[in-house]
Amino acid sequence: MSDDTDHDDSEPDRTAREQPTDPTPAPADEQAFTVTPYAVEGSIDYEKLLERFGAEPLTTDQVDRFPDRPAIRRGFFYAGRDVDRYLEAAESGDPHAIVTGRGPSGSMHLGHVLPLYLAKHLQRETGATVYVPLSDDEKFLAKEGSLESIGEHTRDNLRDILAVGFDPERTRIVVDTVDADLIYPLAVRLADYLTPATVDAVYGQQGTVGLQFYPAVQAAHLLLPQLVAGRQPTLVPVAIDQDPHVRVCRDVAARESLPVEKPGALLGRFLPSLEGPGKMSTSGNAPSIGLADDPETVAATIRDHAYTGGRATLEEHREKGGDPSVDVPFQYLRYCFEPDDDDLERIAERYRAGDLLSGELKEIAIDRITDFLAAHQRRREELGELATELEPYRLTDAERRRALERAGVPSVLEG
Amino acid sequence: MSDDTDHDDSEPDRTAREQPTDPTPAPADEQAFTVTPYAVEGSIDYEKLLERFGAEPLTTDQVDRFPDRPAIRRGFFYAGRDVDRYLEAAESGDPHAIVTGRGPSGSMHLGHVLPLYLAKHLQRETGATVYVPLSDDEKFLAKEGSLESIGEHTRDNLRDILAVGFDPERTRIVVDTVDADLIYPLAVRLADYLTPATVDAVYGQQGTVGLQFYPAVQAAHLLLPQLVAGRQPTLVPVAIDQDPHVRVCRDVAARESLPVEKPGALLGRFLPSLEGPGKMSTSGNAPSIGLADDPETVAATIRDHAYTGGRATLEEHREKGGDPSVDVPFQYLRYCFEPDDDDLERIAERYRAGDLLSGELKEIAIDRITDFLAAHQRRREELGELATELEPYRLTDAERRRALERAGVPSVLEG
Repeated sequence: MSDDTDHDDSEPDRTAREQPTDPTPAPADEQAFTVTPYAVEGSIDYEKLLERFGAEPLTTDQVDRFPDRPAIRRGFFYAGRDVDRYLEAAESGDPHAIVTGRGPSGSMHLGHVLPLYLAKHLQRETGATVYVPLSDDEKFLAKEGSLESIGEHTRDNLRDILAVGFDPERTRIVVDTVDADLIYPLAVRLADYLTPATVDAVYGQQGTVGLQFYPAVQAAHLLLPQLVAGRQPTLVPVAIDQDPHVRVCRDVAARESLPVEKPGALLGRFLPSLEGPGKMSTSGNAPSIGLADDPETVAATIRDHAYTGGRATLEEHREKGGDPSVDVPFQYLRYCFEPDDDDLERIAERYRAGDLLSGELKEIAIDRITDFLAAHQRRREELGELATELEPYRLTDAERRRALERAGVPSVLEG
Repeated sequence: MSDDTDHDDSEPDRTAREQPTDPTPAPADEQAFTVTPYAVEGSIDYEKLLERFGAEPLTTDQVDRFPDRPAIRRGFFYAGRDVDRYLEAAESGDPHAIVTGRGPSGSMHLGHVLPLYLAKHLQRETGATVYVPLSDDEKFLAKEGSLESIGEHTRDNLRDILAVGFDPERTRIVVDTVDADLIYPLAVRLADYLTPATVDAVYGQQGTVGLQFYPAVQAAHLLLPQLVAGRQPTLVPVAIDQDPHVRVCRDVAARESLPVEKPGALLGRFLPSLEGPGKMSTSGNAPSIGLADDPETVAATIRDHAYTGGRATLEEHREKGGDPSVDVPFQYLRYCFEPDDDDLERIAERYRAGDLLSGELKEIAIDRITDFLAAHQRRREELGELATELEPYRLTDAERRRALERAGVPSVLEG
């Protein structure tokens, strides 16, 4: 590698410059990576994480029983908790729910919205109820912005969530500060079993008493479907760094005399950063693909920044071929944007054979992602006034009352 | 003292049996008493408490400037914080507020309601706005009852608070779980400056993350008048054990970029337990005078349990006289029920001279207290349905919006 500061737009050269010094880092050991809901550091060993967290790898049988989806079929979601319970209800038509939240600390990027589209797919296929809680309180308390900026992001994120196109009959969107009339009393009910020691052990020491309380709010999120509509299997599809929230809620649910069962989890890898392995994030320095990006921006971002499995020179690539297993554009196709196994394998083969260049593979990903974003953006643009659009997705008064009743929170002003 | 288990209804004997072994206990030293919002232990040295807490004794000038009230004139409220600021506003007719809360862990007794009547008096005399927050969340989290029982106590306590007869134009009653739509976002805003270390230092280690968060809720209570209606002196009349809540809120208010000033405090002694010095409490074993007690019960409670300054025998009492300074029925008259200084002094003199027996002094207190309770109970009985009665005292939607706006909590669903 000669010069990696001067960017050249010709394909083989750019591919060469993106070539990492060491494309296959040694597996991380127990000490070498940190994964909590507030920090993801180091190179992630996903199998070790399962051991560390005590979750179960998905079985082939479980994968087959889910409605077909590349992210599940191809192992992006690779583990879970109580997945069978969920699948049984989904197969038999019994009530079942999904909770997939959003922390509104910025505008949403591709990695944020894909779990929502997965939830929409599962909803369409098996009738799952979907709950989308927005933790604006947590984002403020975690000092990820002023209340004002988090409020703006919340409004912006809500439009993206609405643009996903959930079935309003079966979907409830909750904002912690907006729906505090329900969320806070439920969190108080659940906080009764959450000691500071438990929270410190699971999350590390927190900087404010607000963050220390937040796991109780999160537990309320994950139990909402059951509190609103009765005991039912609930699946929480999250990147594995969010698993501690699920575990804390499961412990609370097990100890509570509440009419709920423990929520299950569907645990995912991190969508790779454009610049290579690790967690995609807008808060780090890594460039990312925003949901509002226009096609030119998407193309430029991927062309300029995507980490590839290509070789240092065009000649070497033609001769030795590329490595799709570390190629980020290929991973996008694999986990999200190329559902056809034969087509995907054909791309991989041509890449490995050196017939397909990194730049060409990028263009395939660019096409798919811009198509996806165009559809998303069109739906978003068609939305009217936020409060009006959100209304059909808000918990009704009757639902709020039922949830408080099931949680044992008395209605002071009635009776 | 011969027999202190067998009760005899004849006066001199009963007086004799109530005679304490040592009527003038030695002043407590720094280690000998504990005062936090969750524990009052040992014999209280009120002056030491002031030093320990860093509050200021009320000056004669301040006492004179308050609307006349026995509890202030005669030193039941004996200290404060930023009292001058409050008095200046009260004198000049500028906005000023009082916050006096209630933890609904049981039915209310005399000691609970007297600060409310003081607030009503100040409201009538100088137009103070009065806020009465009910911390049902805290009482549940402090394990003082199930949510259901605390809900029942909340409903019951609300009736007593309404029976006080506040001016609904100038009074707001808030219940944490009922008004969580406002209280929780405000508490999140304020929690940003409350570290677990601060809370542990002020309150001692808390058992649940809910209790650890609660000081933020309390801070919201104390800043409510200013958040709803703009910067103004706010006085918090509390027994001195509640002062840590005020101090924490003052620290938060000082650090916040909020349009508020630090709330002030008017710090009171504990209304003496019927059975002697210390804090009156329904949670301990000491009998107390409930707001719902009928005259016979009040009379029996005072006759059977009130600690007096009488002598061991009728002869000794007639000869040496009683000690009003430790006599609980006399303290009731002094701090609450005998506003006339001459009449009070006459009672004291006759008691000291041995002309007035303990039993006779008790009967004077019984008469005053039963009159007071009869009026309270009559107003309480005249109340209709709780929600309807409470309505004029609830924060309006406009007031809620203004408070959130002043606190910088954005309105997600508007604009």
